[in-house]
Amino acid sequence: MSTNETRIEVDPDLPTLRVIRDFDAAPEKVFRAWTDPDLVSRWLGPRETEMRIDSWDATTGGSYRYAAWRGDEEIARFYGSFHEVRPGQRLVQTFTWEGAPDGVSLDTTVFEDLGDGRTRVTTTSVVETIEIRDMIVASGMDKGVIEGYEKLDELLSGD
Amino acid sequence: MSTNETRIEVDPDLPTLRVIRDFDAAPEKVFRAWTDPDLVSRWLGPRETEMRIDSWDATTGGSYRYAAWRGDEEIARFYGSFHEVRPGQRLVQTFTWEGAPDGVSLDTTVFEDLGDGRTRVTTTSVVETIEIRDMIVASGMDKGVIEGYEKLDELLSGD
Repeated sequence: MSTNETRIEVDPDLPTLRVIRDFDAAPEKVFRAWTDPDLVSRWLGPRETEMRIDSWDATTGGSYRYAAWRGDEEIARFYGSFHEVRPGQRLVQTFTWEGAPDGVSLDTTVFEDLGDGRTRVTTTSVVETIEIRDMIVASGMDKGVIEGYEKLDELLSGD
Repeated sequence: MSTNETRIEVDPDLPTLRVIRDFDAAPEKVFRAWTDPDLVSRWLGPRETEMRIDSWDATTGGSYRYAAWRGDEEIARFYGSFHEVRPGQRLVQTFTWEGAPDGVSLDTTVFEDLGDGRTRVTTTSVVETIEIRDMIVASGMDKGVIEGYEKLDELLSGD
């Protein structure tokens, strides 16, 4: 069991949200878990949901779309674009929950080599207003992020 | 000659920039000028530069890339993704100047029907920090926007 803690930071002045997490794997391996759809579908999101990927083209200018299922019910659908994919280093993508298509976030994920086969992953999300950011926080996204990262720990240790 | 004024608003508290402009044409026609690459290349950017489009797929999940030329010299290159293209109404896209690839903006352009064949176009750009926003403003983007919209007035009146 990993003892790495997920930190979720809400900026008091800016419409941004930051998630910081260390992983016990090298940057290339962690990056692959973010970009290979067969791996992404195994860890993204909370434990009780299953992620079914419709499309996932993690290249600069590519896009993605996936649905969250609980049992035999589709409970949410998400989509976005990959603005930049800088292998092993950086991912810049847009993100929308289809239920609120006008609330779009721009998410930048940076993969930092900590040495000794460890990687710090920092995702900064920015939206247009503090109110939209606060709605995202209030949606319970923290549960999905924390549980997803625990699944990713298991995936990374099992390869 | 159009008398429509371009307003550029800088939010004092948020890392956003807003450009508001009315056009003497219906929303569908103005929207087409934003999405058809043959039209975009005729108005985008300041007067003394020529926009050469490498790729332009204005569909949800598509992307674009273009260069600005002055005479026989390439002076800048830009790229991004189309997060959402909602015909006649809304465009959400990312935008980067290749010279500063870590400074990405998320630009939402809304086309509002004012009736009588007029359209209000509002573009809201958000970036991660006030400092990045201020650098964009200081880059002289206002000249490019204002002159580009004047060229668009001419294009729309000539069709």
